[in-house]
Amino acid sequence: MRPKPLSGFPEFLPSGRIVEQAVLDTLRETFELHSFASIETRAVETMDSLTRKGEITKEVYVVRRLHAASDDVAELGLHYDLTVPFARYVLENSGHLTFPFRRYQIQKAWRGERPQEGRYREFCQADIDIVGENTLAEHHDVEVVLVMLEALERLHERFGVPPVVMAVNNRKLAEGFYAGLGIEDHLAVLQRVDKFDKIGRDGVQRLLVDELGLNAGVAATCLDLAEIRTADTSFVERVRALGVQHPLLDEGLASLAEVVTAAAEAVPGRLVADLRIARGLDYYTGTVYETQMTGLESLGSICSGGRYDALASDGKRTWPGVGISLGVSRIVAPLVARGALTASRSVPSCVLVAVDAEETRGQASAVAAQLRARGIPTEVAPKADKFGKQIRYADRRGIPYVWFSDGSVKDIRSGEQVPADPQTWTPPASDLRPTVAAG
Amino acid sequence: MRPKPLSGFPEFLPSGRIVEQAVLDTLRETFELHSFASIETRAVETMDSLTRKGEITKEVYVVRRLHAASDDVAELGLHYDLTVPFARYVLENSGHLTFPFRRYQIQKAWRGERPQEGRYREFCQADIDIVGENTLAEHHDVEVVLVMLEALERLHERFGVPPVVMAVNNRKLAEGFYAGLGIEDHLAVLQRVDKFDKIGRDGVQRLLVDELGLNAGVAATCLDLAEIRTADTSFVERVRALGVQHPLLDEGLASLAEVVTAAAEAVPGRLVADLRIARGLDYYTGTVYETQMTGLESLGSICSGGRYDALASDGKRTWPGVGISLGVSRIVAPLVARGALTASRSVPSCVLVAVDAEETRGQASAVAAQLRARGIPTEVAPKADKFGKQIRYADRRGIPYVWFSDGSVKDIRSGEQVPADPQTWTPPASDLRPTVAAG
Repeated sequence: MRPKPLSGFPEFLPSGRIVEQAVLDTLRETFELHSFASIETRAVETMDSLTRKGEITKEVYVVRRLHAASDDVAELGLHYDLTVPFARYVLENSGHLTFPFRRYQIQKAWRGERPQEGRYREFCQADIDIVGENTLAEHHDVEVVLVMLEALERLHERFGVPPVVMAVNNRKLAEGFYAGLGIEDHLAVLQRVDKFDKIGRDGVQRLLVDELGLNAGVAATCLDLAEIRTADTSFVERVRALGVQHPLLDEGLASLAEVVTAAAEAVPGRLVADLRIARGLDYYTGTVYETQMTGLESLGSICSGGRYDALASDGKRTWPGVGISLGVSRIVAPLVARGALTASRSVPSCVLVAVDAEETRGQASAVAAQLRARGIPTEVAPKADKFGKQIRYADRRGIPYVWFSDGSVKDIRSGEQVPADPQTWTPPASDLRPTVAAG
Repeated sequence: MRPKPLSGFPEFLPSGRIVEQAVLDTLRETFELHSFASIETRAVETMDSLTRKGEITKEVYVVRRLHAASDDVAELGLHYDLTVPFARYVLENSGHLTFPFRRYQIQKAWRGERPQEGRYREFCQADIDIVGENTLAEHHDVEVVLVMLEALERLHERFGVPPVVMAVNNRKLAEGFYAGLGIEDHLAVLQRVDKFDKIGRDGVQRLLVDELGLNAGVAATCLDLAEIRTADTSFVERVRALGVQHPLLDEGLASLAEVVTAAAEAVPGRLVADLRIARGLDYYTGTVYETQMTGLESLGSICSGGRYDALASDGKRTWPGVGISLGVSRIVAPLVARGALTASRSVPSCVLVAVDAEETRGQASAVAAQLRARGIPTEVAPKADKFGKQIRYADRRGIPYVWFSDGSVKDIRSGEQVPADPQTWTPPASDLRPTVAAG
């Protein structure tokens, strides 16, 4: 009986895994070039810390020993993101870390949501965050955007992952704007404006007037703000034209303009100021980001984050941070499933060494060892067999070269066969490892 | 309030994580050179498959959605090894895999055991297995040993991980030997001989005589076999000298001699034939391996496995395999905790670009971008500050070079400062990334 896949727990065949590894390697390379240090945290957190804010809205998976004993004090759950564990890690290890602390973290997370394309119960995330002790300079808000856009641009250029558009806003901008209009409860307004995409301008207008008692003109001005979206800094003028004044608004405009200017220079065309972005109401206090893949907008945001004034706090000290989280599974699983990203072969092997007879397997192994010593992934045919069968073995796996005992090597794609010395023969760099490309 | 670590769930500081990454990279490199394909399986399996053999002796962690619904058919648990998930994966995907299938898998696993040094509730394993459809040639038993020993030897040579001794036996050898002595229930004997290290020769002799009714001479011969341990193939003669005859014994002796000969040639001094090794009674049917780190024998076996005639079966077909599993956490966590393996710095950064004033941050960022474009991990000072402070910032993290706006770079270890061009300056290869060495 064949077991059935578990809905929401995607697994790759070896060729899909090669695609995923190529993506993960590129992310790691980019993050390390920008000096983010890797950490990994345990898969479980105490239920207490997973539900710290009193809300259990996330679909947490509870974890319990089958043979639970009285010494298991804390109830545990699987982490549903990498931010909660990171905040705990910073608090737990603050005496051993140097701040500002720059970390990346690439790990699985789990949520019991209803599975759909791009949304899974087990998924891989890649997060970068910069965290300061008590203070954190604002230039880091620009920095994390640029690092993540650089990573996404590499995925686009190297493998043909669709290009992205990152939409950025600043919570101070909206808060200052609402304050300038005489509105006190800015969160109440933000919460309703956040429904713009779902219920439209008129719907939000009604909520602002009926539920919050704003007058129609003030509500309309809030919606005019929410409709501003520009690829350059012209959003500043358009906000100014609405005639609202407030120091916090000025701060937010300046911050956002800085992000837009820097991104336009570093990765042109990939970032827009979008004054409708809110990213929920929880802990973001400054810049907020979200990101869509061009042509795959239905997947939702693949990459989001922002600035939080208190990632963690121990009562005496506070750790503000800014971070951004990439949904690796949300990108890779749909692209692999659609055949939009493929690997050139399903195994690492560049060369298959043929075996004439079981008695000469040792000679084949010796050739393989020489090739491997020079960094060439090589396997020895599992069975002495007719050459045609050995070539078919290689072909079925996408292995490009077969090595024969007469000291020749055959490119089985072109059929070209040349004499070769295992001490010196070198394949073209593009054949050495599996490559990944748009399918 | 500072959160406390959870016993049995070790986490590394960034420098320890660099050590772990170096180990994992080396394992991956070795496995891929030998053409093992990477797979990852989901963290959860159905409880049914985790307890398939009716035994729930492993301390399984059960996983349940906090908001569980009636559509959650299967009860789930975290996998406690990578063999059970791999067997399920092979069965589920057999139509899409090509056999013999060579895979490596590096992932976390979870067991609710009592935590102690080298034994954790969450731990990382690295497994290689070769699985055939219906048949699998015996030369793969030799192969997986050589691949794992090559990986362990690289860890020893590159980083100073202690050398290992792998002890190998063959279940056919003991079974044939007991059969030659006229013993029918060879598992009953094996089970008792397995207690040799705990209760000594006399203790086992008593069990064999009292519980199994063997005569004292036969029991003594079984124990003579169990005491044979040789670094070369002389074990064959010593077994022959005990005067027992059986075709299965011949087969086992020949198999084991082949492993010993191949290993002595490839990685001299790292493998012994040890006729006491049993590796429990469950699914192993041929070669069995276990491994100790020299000087750290108290950690127990860091690497074990063997041949199993039926990794998986769907009723019609059977998938025999041979594999070996390395306890990455069991090696790395104790060595890092003891300071026996250390990283040269706690961040990826090779260069810190100093910032004179916040107004010139853009120039510092431009220098950093040029260095990164040539593969040099670089960070920009988070704050314009006195040069002494910026040097201290680098020093505290182990960053070897500081770049100044006058176009010079300083090796802060030697104090040497030279003019440099960000388009051409290149650090020594040994400084480019953090290095790992015996502490």
